[in-house]
Amino acid sequence: MPTATASAYDQLTARLHDRAVVDSIGTLLSWDQETKMPPKASGYRAKQLAMMSRMEHERATDPALGDLLAACAEDSDVQGDPVKATNVREARKDYDRATKLPTELVVEMTETSSLAMDAWKTARAKSDFKEFQPWLEKHVALNRRKAECYGIPEGGELYDALLEDYETGMRAAQVESLFKPLRERLTPLIAAIADKPAIENAADGRACPIPVQREFLNEIAGALGYDLDGGRLDPTTHPFCQTMGPKDVRITTRYDANNFLDALQTTLHEAGHAMYEQGLETDTYFGEPRATAASLGIHESQSRMWENQVGRSEAFWAWALPIAKKHFSAAMDGLTVESLHRSSNIVKPHFIRVESDEATYNLHIMLRFDIERLMLSGDLAVADVPAWWNDRMKTDLGLDVPDDRRGCLQDVHWSMGAMGYFPTYTLGNLYCGQFWDTVNAELPNLDASFAAGDFAPLLAWLRDKVHTPGRTYAPQDLCERVTGKPLSHEPLCNYLESKLTEMYNL
Amino acid sequence: MPTATASAYDQLTARLHDRAVVDSIGTLLSWDQETKMPPKASGYRAKQLAMMSRMEHERATDPALGDLLAACAEDSDVQGDPVKATNVREARKDYDRATKLPTELVVEMTETSSLAMDAWKTARAKSDFKEFQPWLEKHVALNRRKAECYGIPEGGELYDALLEDYETGMRAAQVESLFKPLRERLTPLIAAIADKPAIENAADGRACPIPVQREFLNEIAGALGYDLDGGRLDPTTHPFCQTMGPKDVRITTRYDANNFLDALQTTLHEAGHAMYEQGLETDTYFGEPRATAASLGIHESQSRMWENQVGRSEAFWAWALPIAKKHFSAAMDGLTVESLHRSSNIVKPHFIRVESDEATYNLHIMLRFDIERLMLSGDLAVADVPAWWNDRMKTDLGLDVPDDRRGCLQDVHWSMGAMGYFPTYTLGNLYCGQFWDTVNAELPNLDASFAAGDFAPLLAWLRDKVHTPGRTYAPQDLCERVTGKPLSHEPLCNYLESKLTEMYNL
Repeated sequence: MPTATASAYDQLTARLHDRAVVDSIGTLLSWDQETKMPPKASGYRAKQLAMMSRMEHERATDPALGDLLAACAEDSDVQGDPVKATNVREARKDYDRATKLPTELVVEMTETSSLAMDAWKTARAKSDFKEFQPWLEKHVALNRRKAECYGIPEGGELYDALLEDYETGMRAAQVESLFKPLRERLTPLIAAIADKPAIENAADGRACPIPVQREFLNEIAGALGYDLDGGRLDPTTHPFCQTMGPKDVRITTRYDANNFLDALQTTLHEAGHAMYEQGLETDTYFGEPRATAASLGIHESQSRMWENQVGRSEAFWAWALPIAKKHFSAAMDGLTVESLHRSSNIVKPHFIRVESDEATYNLHIMLRFDIERLMLSGDLAVADVPAWWNDRMKTDLGLDVPDDRRGCLQDVHWSMGAMGYFPTYTLGNLYCGQFWDTVNAELPNLDASFAAGDFAPLLAWLRDKVHTPGRTYAPQDLCERVTGKPLSHEPLCNYLESKLTEMYNL
Repeated sequence: MPTATASAYDQLTARLHDRAVVDSIGTLLSWDQETKMPPKASGYRAKQLAMMSRMEHERATDPALGDLLAACAEDSDVQGDPVKATNVREARKDYDRATKLPTELVVEMTETSSLAMDAWKTARAKSDFKEFQPWLEKHVALNRRKAECYGIPEGGELYDALLEDYETGMRAAQVESLFKPLRERLTPLIAAIADKPAIENAADGRACPIPVQREFLNEIAGALGYDLDGGRLDPTTHPFCQTMGPKDVRITTRYDANNFLDALQTTLHEAGHAMYEQGLETDTYFGEPRATAASLGIHESQSRMWENQVGRSEAFWAWALPIAKKHFSAAMDGLTVESLHRSSNIVKPHFIRVESDEATYNLHIMLRFDIERLMLSGDLAVADVPAWWNDRMKTDLGLDVPDDRRGCLQDVHWSMGAMGYFPTYTLGNLYCGQFWDTVNAELPNLDASFAAGDFAPLLAWLRDKVHTPGRTYAPQDLCERVTGKPLSHEPLCNYLESKLTEMYNL
């Protein structure tokens, strides 16, 4: 009965739209909490967030949604329409995952996260892994159960089931085959740089008032293509990008009043995320998978491209330096395109992941991926994490970790029970490197256009190739469609080696 | 069965708390829309607001709520507990009013408001009342139906049923008996001032950068007693105060970069509203009538007291001038306590209500009250509103209204169909005048404490007498309990006459 099934699809999208309204309100509550909320309001904010999260869960797991999806799957008209087929296929995937976890497991994970975060804060403050260890053990056990509920893919492993939440279709073995050669090429590169004279950060100690930095950043981000009439920039401790409507994609940054590069790079990164969100076809399909990001890895590829390939290029500085001079005037005296280009590309091993540069960052990620995978498989006891961590930091980055605070207790993620998330950062760098090769082959004058302040060709290419499809293709399929090749470590390695060899006279 | 009825009360408060979470999320959506939201986001924001408003309406009119209220009304334990009795009585009142309007009428009012607001904007831009007239006629007809649905109180009139939404227990005839003598004393006072030399505004033309004004205002508002750890101050075109949680009461102001008094007075006003909200017993009863403001009139009495009785006093300036000098430095050169005291008390008739001073403002309100009442009773045809308006402006304020834009088309309220709301502004001034007399009789050294920057005695008195009871007493009963007398025009008249006689050497 075509009429009945056509109506099933309309009912399905109506439900997806309704759920998107709920989600977007939850996002505003969370954005406000991070940016504007008075400190004493946090207790009640938890109740407001809980209401929206309960409503979201009800909508995501409503059996009526399952019935509609089943009806749509049998409708040849729906299946013959690429947009509808994408929406039904991806909504089915979301529904299946949302309904696979038993409520008691979800409740236990939520409660454990809350207690484990408190324990982690104390443990980190005291630099005492032992205090956190039982919580991490519990999270590993819960993640094993979670992975089993999701189901392990044919020929796969526990980790795959978790990774699927963040990077659909990716498997741990494939991550390993990408990360291994990347590590083999990055470690000697970083070691070689360590033997060379350090590059001085020319922006250090130049006082740039934060309100002026904000105006500078709005001008820069707007010129790249971030539509600030459908977005805004605010300060937070931990920068992020959040979407709370089809025309409401907000970013945040952090400021160093004595070095404007920090906020600039962070803003370019978050604006990259935001431009992806703004490039999805949300005018027509907001709330549907068709207008949702392909994966976290693809998302990260967009933020990294604007932060790194664009924002750390000489051409970028040829354009941006005069703008910086206009805003910061005397504080920029003596700075040149060359000095800013060099200062943007300093490579220096650091204990802390979030303080790390474009090259060493990936080694932090690979370390975490390996530990997560070993803990899940049982090949690494949780008690041995600190020793394993510290050995690896020495091997890969030449650093002696002084304490767990600056070692395996530095990130919040494990205390929240999140496992399988970290690799998406480096996968994003890999996608980005590969997209960058292709776009430069197809648009050979990008450098000249950047130097002239024209970022429209790059953005239009990304819109067309990467943003517009949304979840039409799985991330790796998207990569292959755009670049003609399966995802590889080589473009990123080549890009880093070439740039850093020149920068450090290797 | 005590257990069964005790449980009815607990179920009732659980429902009130749930509804408060919904309301508070709607308030955040609306606050964000006015203060932070990117311009392009307004379309989707309407959907988000509609969802929360639908949820709020479902909760307010749920028949199960009616059943619980009926059960509570029969429970002698509930009725014997003052807090519970207040909550049940007031929640019953809210429920009855929410369920008295038929859905089709609510829908028609909402649709008419939306269309009428567009028509009003066009009509105001062209200064052409005729374009707005049919919409105002429709709103008058709808308000008549609304009043009939609510039910006209014994011996009352249509207007009473509308007024009840904003000032419970107040009747139009009583408003008239308060406003008539107020008008009879204010008009000669204002006429006498018009014959005297104008007071120069000593703050005019003194450049005060807006970020500095913001810091100044945060210091002032914080010193008065507005808890900024449970609130914040942002700029908007139309200043307001909104509560979005028991510890989240935010205010806004508008800035004139060349006269800091504008934002100061607005901030004192909104901080007055906020301190009332912060003084309700929301730690224990948030979402229950017990921790809700008594009425709009009582609310306005609090904003006016901090803006006028405190903020326009000589003692206030003795304390605030050094703070202004600290923030604005050279821009304050030559200003004295006397010049700022005088500049804060300029009386000058103005066409526009929201630009008017402490004395003339009330004449704007009385004019609107009279017109609304006459339109509703049918004694004034809507077509005759402009002529009536202009005559009255001439009689009361000596002004010749040049066009409808600066006359009867100036306010948004009628285009939204709101009638019965305006009188609460002047009722607030009357309550305020009467509270002020009492607090000065009970705390004779307020001026000295203000001059020393100590506002705690006044705030503690207001907390104890006015804020803490919430909706325990009807507004007029509260006034009589606090001041020992029924509400009267005299304290406000005496206060204005005494101050302005001295200020203008009358």
